[in-house]
Amino acid sequence: MRIGDTHYRSIWLDENPGVIRVIDQRKLPFEFEIMDLLSLEDACFAISEMVVRGAPLIGVTAAYGLYLAGLNSDSADWCDEVKKAANSLIATRPTAVNLKYAVDLGLGELNCADSREGMIDRLFHLAKSLAEEEVKRSHRIGEHGLALIRECYKKKQAPVNILTHCNAGWLACVDYGTATAPIYQAHEEGIPVHVWVDETRPRSQGSRLTAYELGEHGVAHTVIVDNAGGHLMQKGEVDMVLVGSDRTTRNGDVANKIGTYLKALAARDNDIPFYVALPTSTIDMNLATGKKIEIENRDAEEVSHMTGWDEKRHMASQLRVLPEGSEVANPGFDVTPSRLVTGLITEKGVCPATEEAISFLFEG
Amino acid sequence: MRIGDTHYRSIWLDENPGVIRVIDQRKLPFEFEIMDLLSLEDACFAISEMVVRGAPLIGVTAAYGLYLAGLNSDSADWCDEVKKAANSLIATRPTAVNLKYAVDLGLGELNCADSREGMIDRLFHLAKSLAEEEVKRSHRIGEHGLALIRECYKKKQAPVNILTHCNAGWLACVDYGTATAPIYQAHEEGIPVHVWVDETRPRSQGSRLTAYELGEHGVAHTVIVDNAGGHLMQKGEVDMVLVGSDRTTRNGDVANKIGTYLKALAARDNDIPFYVALPTSTIDMNLATGKKIEIENRDAEEVSHMTGWDEKRHMASQLRVLPEGSEVANPGFDVTPSRLVTGLITEKGVCPATEEAISFLFEG
Repeated sequence: MRIGDTHYRSIWLDENPGVIRVIDQRKLPFEFEIMDLLSLEDACFAISEMVVRGAPLIGVTAAYGLYLAGLNSDSADWCDEVKKAANSLIATRPTAVNLKYAVDLGLGELNCADSREGMIDRLFHLAKSLAEEEVKRSHRIGEHGLALIRECYKKKQAPVNILTHCNAGWLACVDYGTATAPIYQAHEEGIPVHVWVDETRPRSQGSRLTAYELGEHGVAHTVIVDNAGGHLMQKGEVDMVLVGSDRTTRNGDVANKIGTYLKALAARDNDIPFYVALPTSTIDMNLATGKKIEIENRDAEEVSHMTGWDEKRHMASQLRVLPEGSEVANPGFDVTPSRLVTGLITEKGVCPATEEAISFLFEG
Repeated sequence: MRIGDTHYRSIWLDENPGVIRVIDQRKLPFEFEIMDLLSLEDACFAISEMVVRGAPLIGVTAAYGLYLAGLNSDSADWCDEVKKAANSLIATRPTAVNLKYAVDLGLGELNCADSREGMIDRLFHLAKSLAEEEVKRSHRIGEHGLALIRECYKKKQAPVNILTHCNAGWLACVDYGTATAPIYQAHEEGIPVHVWVDETRPRSQGSRLTAYELGEHGVAHTVIVDNAGGHLMQKGEVDMVLVGSDRTTRNGDVANKIGTYLKALAARDNDIPFYVALPTSTIDMNLATGKKIEIENRDAEEVSHMTGWDEKRHMASQLRVLPEGSEVANPGFDVTPSRLVTGLITEKGVCPATEEAISFLFEG
């Protein structure tokens, strides 16, 4: 999608072989900076420090990370090194199922390779094709979600108000996004859409990333604190909720950024449809319910400190925003039970959040 | 309650007549600064700019504001001036029913006064007695709420985890607080309590004020982002929710800081009791339901900018935390429907959030 006058993806290949480029999303919207990934360590750093974030982008970055591990591997020990690299990558973000999926595919390629050069070539093409697939998938999610927005607009004949949480935008994917893909396509089609953007504390991916990318692309939007969505729903100011998912289980339970569950409860209480947009690669058929999902407890500093743009438009250093003696807890995700989900918008179509419907999706 | 080694109230009289002192709560927990109120304008500023906040403290400050208006009034025009002052005070925070209550009492005193001196004396004693009454009321709310915590502890035989939103602490009252009064009393009685403190964006009264006052008084607590409470409830980490109220209607609907409604939904979804602690003076018997409550839309800068403590422990200037082109909406309160409220903890006892029970409270 567009940043200023330029079309970007969130991850791309440099002209130099062995150099992967990503946007450093920690600095957005204050600074637009590109980071070069040259090694496995760079890729692990990018994933664990959230230079890149969002399930699909994490998967693609991990695949490129495995390729970089192969490229830099010892000529004798390459097989063992890449296997170790796979473990390092998986350890960076335990909740992200795409990451494991991409790494497992890479290990499959490794098993098929009969030389170091063959392995490098296989891992490179795997990563590249995963990236292309993500773009196609996002576009298809957009088409299926667009039908829902179009229907809503036909009934309402007024701008469609969509609430979203966190960033399930193109910055979280490779292009288009998941939750934002239908929004961008509705916007392109000329349907008036307006997005309520949850700030999404503690990392504020909503106000920093979603607001940024919607703004750069020209989509009307309003930033609100995470506390405000329920009230807006009570007042009839929200027509649908549209969020992404880091991991969805076989029965349709949805793990997503902390706070998603609260919006799902409010949507249900006010009879507002609550949709989750996701590539089917984030559905974990091995997990029966969301109760089994391990929720990562993230760094206390994400809550206790904040940064921003000073009056000279410089990124300021971290400021402490709570008393020094206070403890902090920082669970990164919550699980929205399938009973609160109106539908899953996938690249294969829209389906109810039930085991039956999800299984059918995989058969089809 | 205590700050360091000193006992404070949130509003008190200076030795000099005509000087009212308050803690500048905008600067907590980073700086402890006292502000002198010398005029009606000072009092209006303190209320509208949230130097003082919280329904009971706003009421007492308004009463002192009316007294200051009287004290500084013209010898001929005093009656009209105080009437005008009443309107100015009411306009500062339209949602705060205590404010109107205190100002109406002041106008009653004005009507009884037959001289400027008599009026000043009456307004002074009104304000002073309102402050003393608030302290007594908070203490009684604490006693009634303590019984609920004690009961929970008897069953559980482990620390009682209480989630609170915003600051309904002694800083919002004159002493003890409303939602915190039972917590302080349980702590004094030796019941192990642990408080989950919602950050409460946009003004972060939870992490700035509630965490500060609990910490200064030695009560165990953990700060969380507003998004996290639902997840903690799902995980069995919350035994009860205890919040304050800015305004409660005849049928038991509760207007409180934006985001309260979301926590009430999560408490109901997880079978956790949701209590609202409030002095009966905040119950508005003239309003049939919460749907009629006017919700103030506050300044966008509360959302778009943040401040904090830099590494030198100085209060930093405001930092922008979202893109410049993005719109912001900032509703200050939401309404939690009575059906989600387990009970109202008042100075007169605990009662269900129903019109019948509330009416009985006023008769008793």
